[in-house]
Amino acid sequence: MTENPENPENPDITHETERRARLTWSLLAEPSDAVALMARERLGSRAALELAREATPAELLAALDGQVPAEAADPGAGTPGARASRALQRWRGRLAAVDVEAVLEDADRRRIRVLIPGDEEWPSALDDLQETAPHCLWVQGPARLDRLAGERAAALVGSRASTPYGEDVASSLGAAFAGAGGTVVSGGAYGIDAAAHRGALAAQDGATLAVLAGGLDRLYPRGNTQLLERIREQHLLLSEAPMGTAPTRWRFLARNRLIAALSRAVVVVEAAWRSGALSTARLADQLSRPVGAVPGPVTSAASAGCHRLIRERGAVLVTEPAELLDLLPGGPAAGEGSFARQDELDLLSPADRRVLDAVPPRSGISPGRLADEIGFASREVGAALARLELLGLIEQEGQRVRRTRRTG
Amino acid sequence: MTENPENPENPDITHETERRARLTWSLLAEPSDAVALMARERLGSRAALELAREATPAELLAALDGQVPAEAADPGAGTPGARASRALQRWRGRLAAVDVEAVLEDADRRRIRVLIPGDEEWPSALDDLQETAPHCLWVQGPARLDRLAGERAAALVGSRASTPYGEDVASSLGAAFAGAGGTVVSGGAYGIDAAAHRGALAAQDGATLAVLAGGLDRLYPRGNTQLLERIREQHLLLSEAPMGTAPTRWRFLARNRLIAALSRAVVVVEAAWRSGALSTARLADQLSRPVGAVPGPVTSAASAGCHRLIRERGAVLVTEPAELLDLLPGGPAAGEGSFARQDELDLLSPADRRVLDAVPPRSGISPGRLADEIGFASREVGAALARLELLGLIEQEGQRVRRTRRTG
Repeated sequence: MTENPENPENPDITHETERRARLTWSLLAEPSDAVALMARERLGSRAALELAREATPAELLAALDGQVPAEAADPGAGTPGARASRALQRWRGRLAAVDVEAVLEDADRRRIRVLIPGDEEWPSALDDLQETAPHCLWVQGPARLDRLAGERAAALVGSRASTPYGEDVASSLGAAFAGAGGTVVSGGAYGIDAAAHRGALAAQDGATLAVLAGGLDRLYPRGNTQLLERIREQHLLLSEAPMGTAPTRWRFLARNRLIAALSRAVVVVEAAWRSGALSTARLADQLSRPVGAVPGPVTSAASAGCHRLIRERGAVLVTEPAELLDLLPGGPAAGEGSFARQDELDLLSPADRRVLDAVPPRSGISPGRLADEIGFASREVGAALARLELLGLIEQEGQRVRRTRRTG
Repeated sequence: MTENPENPENPDITHETERRARLTWSLLAEPSDAVALMARERLGSRAALELAREATPAELLAALDGQVPAEAADPGAGTPGARASRALQRWRGRLAAVDVEAVLEDADRRRIRVLIPGDEEWPSALDDLQETAPHCLWVQGPARLDRLAGERAAALVGSRASTPYGEDVASSLGAAFAGAGGTVVSGGAYGIDAAAHRGALAAQDGATLAVLAGGLDRLYPRGNTQLLERIREQHLLLSEAPMGTAPTRWRFLARNRLIAALSRAVVVVEAAWRSGALSTARLADQLSRPVGAVPGPVTSAASAGCHRLIRERGAVLVTEPAELLDLLPGGPAAGEGSFARQDELDLLSPADRRVLDAVPPRSGISPGRLADEIGFASREVGAALARLELLGLIEQEGQRVRRTRRTG
């Protein structure tokens, strides 16, 4: 066992102390508790916890350099001192009831793992959340989270109030993407989420990850219990909320940031003009994850949010599994297909275009013969060939002109 | 009658001579006859016509500086000399049968007007076609072409093999656009074109222009005769082909450039992966006309071309009449709506965002009170306000901070 020279404590013990401190924070504070997140980021989980236990409001205020943000669920009101005081009240009210060891035993009995940064299974993608990263994660299932949330994880999300069209698309996209080795990340909700998970479950070798807003002991919504149990048996359930936590509106919104962060791309399959799925898309965009959206009939209100994303937010229009794959790292960016090349050709002057068109697709041709073919003077052909070569559209070798692979 | 000092001829007589020369060219040459277009552009209609009547191939070659392009319907083959010779053969074969006065009388009897550049009714938008501008136009109907093809002309085009969904969208877009004072330009074909024209005809005060590929004496397709007759009675039919011309594949493609040029925006309502409507979109893009496309179910092959345009060609997704109007000159560009402002706000740091959010929507607030409200130090609030003011999101006047109109 090696000792960290800068930290005389046993590193394993330190890591387990950190796990207990973060777990405690997840029991004390909502994911949206901005004061808790700020205290953790500035002071570290353990030092922040000491303050939560023992500090006066003035001490907490001082430790945070006088900056106590309004937390999302309790916005705006009061002075920083008053907010520090309310934060301590919130935390202490819960702290009295916390029994960390009992929670860990309960989790162990249910085969729920509590993950924190530094664990092998902790997905590095979550680091992108920076100061809003979760205190810890609760995961349950045979799969390893760091592998599921790798390079080939994509979120398929959408409305609970879905149409048969949207569900069909979600499940066939989910099946094809999982079948191609991808992980379908979604929120386990009715409608599009459920259809996407089902598609992934149906695929050979598919993987899927359900990110829940409440505790893993409360599979929600009830009507999806069987589906979520299958995901738990075969793949993975995840939540940042401890057991016993009921899903609430705030927790759903906070959950969406995890779906976005754990995925390399987010595709909205069906969403109304205002929909929680649009918040997932916005969060993904903030995290520089590509956002795709599936179009539908303009007469269907259930697709209005998708159209809005494409029209106003620059989301990539997705019609089929290959286009979902294209969104992932290493896939060609949309607009770089053969049509984009076509656009480049369209930018050529008519004369250059005529010269290029006269170069046969496979064999070569001499500049002199080219000039004859199209009735241009040789000096004009020479100038056009020079421009086309600069653009990488043709190559000249001695007295032969050939198309490059880009135009062949 | 004033005389043009640089041209001793009577200008009216000159203009009528030009009309006869251009009319003759429209009788001699296909719209895609690149040699005819080049001769007209380089030499003028009348001088080119002299050559067509009397020149040897060598003289034509010399007049064109040795550059005789391959024309689209007769691509590539042969030397410039051979091409000059074939062009003369083509023109002379038809020239023998041309009786310009008889054609003009026939047009007059049918109340068909022959328009050339310089006529009041000639639409200036066609000048954007440059060397591929038509020799002349044949128009029939009570409307004035220059007015129909003004700032508020938009093409609604699409597949002949349309679905009821596409036809519904085309006719409701057409009706709403025409009802708002727009001209629906389309090609009079079955399917989307017909639905768009019908929508415009149904609108109060609507206008519509059908651009045909064949002569105006041959309303095509036959099944749309009644529709085209209604357009002719109430609005305008147009063709660049003289009477007696049958519509052919080449003429349809050439016709599409007129639809694009006569419109300030082109919206493809429904189109398969390969569709003539995509060529209209491409031509519009080349003419810097905005291109829109209406999405549909990804399961509908009839929408695949529209999705392709949005995904790969940067076409603007259009779901409703207001979004069609937005494409026209003076309309807001897509992506400049409230969501784009939202994007800008998203780029703010969380601290700046929090400061902005704390500025009340209508009334002002003092920086000191702001600092208290959100628990920031006054110097932090001051710095954030300076940045927000730079971005034009707030304005400060003395001790009052207010939102600007952009964020209010």
